[in-house]
Amino acid sequence: MTFEAITYAVEDGIATITLNRPAARNGYTIRMANELPEAFAAADADDDVRVVVINANGKDFCVGMDLTEGGDDFTAADWVEPASRATRPLSRMNKPVIAAIHGAAVGVGSTLTLPADIRIAASDARFGFVFARRGLFPEGGSTWFLPRIVGLARAQEWMLTGRLIPATEALAAGLVSQVVEPEALLDKAYEIARDLIANTAPVATAVIRRTLLHMQGEDSPEAAFQLDSKLIAHAFASPDSLEGITAFLQKRAPKFPGTVPADLPAFLPWRAPVSQAD
Amino acid sequence: MTFEAITYAVEDGIATITLNRPAARNGYTIRMANELPEAFAAADADDDVRVVVINANGKDFCVGMDLTEGGDDFTAADWVEPASRATRPLSRMNKPVIAAIHGAAVGVGSTLTLPADIRIAASDARFGFVFARRGLFPEGGSTWFLPRIVGLARAQEWMLTGRLIPATEALAAGLVSQVVEPEALLDKAYEIARDLIANTAPVATAVIRRTLLHMQGEDSPEAAFQLDSKLIAHAFASPDSLEGITAFLQKRAPKFPGTVPADLPAFLPWRAPVSQAD
Amino acid sequence: MTFEAITYAVEDGIATITLNRPAARNGYTIRMANELPEAFAAADADDDVRVVVINANGKDFCVGMDLTEGGDDFTAADWVEPASRATRPLSRMNKPVIAAIHGAAVGVGSTLTLPADIRIAASDARFGFVFARRGLFPEGGSTWFLPRIVGLARAQEWMLTGRLIPATEALAAGLVSQVVEPEALLDKAYEIARDLIANTAPVATAVIRRTLLHMQGEDSPEAAFQLDSKLIAHAFASPDSLEGITAFLQKRAPKFPGTVPADLPAFLPWRAPVSQAD
Repeated sequence: MTFEAITYAVEDGIATITLNRPAARNGYTIRMANELPEAFAAADADDDVRVVVINANGKDFCVGMDLTEGGDDFTAADWVEPASRATRPLSRMNKPVIAAIHGAAVGVGSTLTLPADIRIAASDARFGFVFARRGLFPEGGSTWFLPRIVGLARAQEWMLTGRLIPATEALAAGLVSQVVEPEALLDKAYEIARDLIANTAPVATAVIRRTLLHMQGEDSPEAAFQLDSKLIAHAFASPDSLEGITAFLQKRAPKFPGTVPADLPAFLPWRAPVSQAD
Repeated sequence: MTFEAITYAVEDGIATITLNRPAARNGYTIRMANELPEAFAAADADDDVRVVVINANGKDFCVGMDLTEGGDDFTAADWVEPASRATRPLSRMNKPVIAAIHGAAVGVGSTLTLPADIRIAASDARFGFVFARRGLFPEGGSTWFLPRIVGLARAQEWMLTGRLIPATEALAAGLVSQVVEPEALLDKAYEIARDLIANTAPVATAVIRRTLLHMQGEDSPEAAFQLDSKLIAHAFASPDSLEGITAFLQKRAPKFPGTVPADLPAFLPWRAPVSQAD
Repeated sequence: MTFEAITYAVEDGIATITLNRPAARNGYTIRMANELPEAFAAADADDDVRVVVINANGKDFCVGMDLTEGGDDFTAADWVEPASRATRPLSRMNKPVIAAIHGAAVGVGSTLTLPADIRIAASDARFGFVFARRGLFPEGGSTWFLPRIVGLARAQEWMLTGRLIPATEALAAGLVSQVVEPEALLDKAYEIARDLIANTAPVATAVIRRTLLHMQGEDSPEAAFQLDSKLIAHAFASPDSLEGITAFLQKRAPKFPGTVPADLPAFLPWRAPVSQAD
């Protein structure tokens, strides 16, 4: 794999994916849209990767779609728009994803991060769902994700005005979980990643991230009560829970034996993707 | 059209709908319930209207249902309760709606505003989902809207206690996006309206407001990924996006050619209303 | 009924259910899991009970699952995991439930409270969705409830990191509606309960709590518009609304005649439980 629009590196269990067109303020090209899912797939398949960190090189996270390097044939029947090429596989990963966002995160610069699990922001970050101001439509599944993250009314106001949302407002709304100084941003992302690696179970993590998404589509808690009984019966018999509880009682860090996808329970009800190309 | 319980005026692209029974603190009569959908329909159909502002005349926004001028035959099989007569068409409009709320907004005074896109409040505003205190039930679809706006727990606490919610709490919960002094309220609503008119595209606005609502009912982001590919392909070929991006690069205000409903994409999946009369 | 792991007492219309294994920091045993639904059923069936308060004896609310007194046969096909045994009937009650939480509320100590209507916390409370840190999975339907209460992103971050959430953060996120000093916690819960008893209608309360849950599963507000017309027609003909409005106009406390379940409307669309044992 050779990447041009992004960089990809694995160290100490962390795959770092960096948007890397700083001269163009990380404008999101077709190439970037095609490289990101490759990087996500590589990280998800690599047993050396426990956590994924997405960040960006340069002054800004990403200023939006950039077609100056060329578009592609968007009239094809099975064409997938560039943002969804990344957000769709991102939403289906088995490993947790931390997005570290600084500077301008405009258009796809914001929507790209919505299926991540944890977003943290530099104090200079500003988010812009600017579509209405460009005569465009929201992409990347953002009309589905954003209201579930910040509530329907904030999503309406943010998307209809297209105004820039400062980091503090993003924090209050729950879009990001922490705001730090720009120079501390990547360190903070790695600190969270190291904590996840040291203290949490890969199988539990995959089940949690995907079940939370799945349960958004269930009409009532009944589906969760049902699934939870299967999951807890499974857990009570699993080496991971034995290790987790033993380590807790012994006040030491756990060493969870389970890995993904090998040790995922067989009965998980996650919805299959529909016909659109992955 | 002659209105008695409300006033309706169009100026500079803004339709202002004003609850106008100040002596009765804008008690919501059957007449008001029947005039509001007429005003919404007029605003939605009028090419001179880009944005709708709802406000109220007098000391309060609306103190709730008022049957002192008479009810109607609520035993009829197809009877539509008064709040839903207004909130249902409000939720189906193609134009953005700003509600400017001051003083008491109690019962239907609060629920009426939930399908608006942007709510702003005067510092003297207080919201009351007081149904349980009156032996009544919530109306206007508010059990569907409120939890999606402020979260399930706040909706439970607000509706079960029926206590008055001050403007600052409404702001923190995401029910309103701004709180201003009472004398500045309408000016602030018009300032937002003028920004929308000057800088945002009517077609994008309609697609955003209705897609956000539609996606509340989709079980997974798959539906959004699918729709977004159609929408972005449509946008890339549309005069609106060409104008939006050109104006942005030229650092000038855009002049979007697209209008609603004429230029709405043909493939939008918005759900049809069910059998109840509109 | 004799309880060992909890206590149950009714006074002045309030059923107080207390987790009562203080020496074990209220570790959640199979016995506790089996006693709680009995207590909920007793409270729901008792005409002398209007409101339920859940609290805990000792330094902590509940530090999580405790199998030191023995498990049960979790390999049985219809086995219901211990948390769901309590949260499922809790979500189906006709009476409002206030949870008063102090100290550690970890694992099932947090998830147990999610189907309550109102959560208040002592300033020393900390919530922990620690499953990933123990090699376990979330239980009690919490993957369904938590994102609907605090938003999808907070639920992801809380459940994936498993970190402890202090009371102030729980308040800002909407998980709890008030934070008070530990010594004032139970008094505050009773103050809310007394207000509900004095001022709100039992039938309206049941309809509100269960309709809010039901509407989470409806794809669009259409279902709510439809139901609301039936509910409001019912209310306009009901003694409760007559009393509520009369008392309001006479500036006196209401005395609502309606009781649950006797006076619940016949047409409520609440979903039936699925095959899992209640």
